[in-house]
Amino acid sequence: MSTNLDTEQNEGESKPSRAGAARLSLYLRCLEGWLRDGSEKVSSKQIAETLGLSDAQIRRDLTCLGNLGQPGVGYAIPNLIRAIRQALGLNRTWIAVLVGVGNLGRALLRYRGFHQQGFRIAALFDSDPTIVGKTFEGLTVHPLENLKEVVRTSNAELGLLTVPGEPAQAVAEQLAEAGIRGILNFAPTLLRLPKSVRLVNVDLTIQLEQLAYQVQLSSDN
Amino acid sequence: MSTNLDTEQNEGESKPSRAGAARLSLYLRCLEGWLRDGSEKVSSKQIAETLGLSDAQIRRDLTCLGNLGQPGVGYAIPNLIRAIRQALGLNRTWIAVLVGVGNLGRALLRYRGFHQQGFRIAALFDSDPTIVGKTFEGLTVHPLENLKEVVRTSNAELGLLTVPGEPAQAVAEQLAEAGIRGILNFAPTLLRLPKSVRLVNVDLTIQLEQLAYQVQLSSDN
Repeated sequence: MSTNLDTEQNEGESKPSRAGAARLSLYLRCLEGWLRDGSEKVSSKQIAETLGLSDAQIRRDLTCLGNLGQPGVGYAIPNLIRAIRQALGLNRTWIAVLVGVGNLGRALLRYRGFHQQGFRIAALFDSDPTIVGKTFEGLTVHPLENLKEVVRTSNAELGLLTVPGEPAQAVAEQLAEAGIRGILNFAPTLLRLPKSVRLVNVDLTIQLEQLAYQVQLSSDN
Repeated sequence: MSTNLDTEQNEGESKPSRAGAARLSLYLRCLEGWLRDGSEKVSSKQIAETLGLSDAQIRRDLTCLGNLGQPGVGYAIPNLIRAIRQALGLNRTWIAVLVGVGNLGRALLRYRGFHQQGFRIAALFDSDPTIVGKTFEGLTVHPLENLKEVVRTSNAELGLLTVPGEPAQAVAEQLAEAGIRGILNFAPTLLRLPKSVRLVNVDLTIQLEQLAYQVQLSSDN
């Protein structure tokens, strides 16, 4: 009986499942930190201890990337980083547009992690006429009417959706019509989208609820 | 072979695992939406279809909450909401402090979902002397030196950490010393904390990476 959130099955031996891909992202974050700190080798045990996962799980995940480990020596960190980036499709630049230039949108625009991993926010959109035309981080805010045109000329594939809950569904549909292929949704709304558009929801309340649950659990024990 | 991110086992029959608790949060979000839209009953099948999970998984999760479903009728939405809120520890107010009053911090301060679920941000902190003393959403920004005193007098248990990566570890330690029992960390840093302090990391780059991975996968197929 699996308790993972993600019930999708792995379609091919070489493609990680969604949960597996999420773990690869976590490993990547650790490995990049260690590389910055000057380390060159790592064992699956070290990754396991840092992340609180099992050694066996780490080895299974890394085996999918090819024959990268050396028994008794471990993994060369730069090779592992390269292999994970390739498996996740991060060995290229991804261009994104951002819709909703409020505090959250502006925070994402300055979020250094996105740029470091090859994500580039190419254009900003807002429906508020007092925000349209303003410049943030060197980008001028467009009205939503320009979405289709700007997505086409910028080759954007991803959309960051940081509008409030109510307009989120309508804006998501506009993004889909404009040719955007994946939406990172911060609006607390369950979006309905064509199957051709991928969706990842960032529901910050769920994360806070999980924290409260764990705190409560630790008091009960 | 389980592929869930969370390898923790369920300790008691009545306590959901971490992954189970995350699913309960998702169900809660759906149920509240349906209740707002005027629905009173729901089947596990409807929840399953909305969230792309299996009907069997939903029924297993909801069975843990007690005998709430009626065969052929489904679940009464208000009862289910009440049971999930109780299981997650949301049938009370949780008081939080927020450290780092930049764009992300200000966005969280206005995030309505937190308040709706019983979370109350009671105090703001920042190390920047140009921000200390300013007021946002009716709250005055304190210097970090006041942390211990304010946590004590406000009965805060949770900390929202929205500082940049470098000072995050030091601030997290200050939060732990001040008596904070759970930290929602937005800094792209793996924090080391005493075992008594719960930690949930919100790594927005991981979410964006997962989206890119899914878009790439849908192109390959």
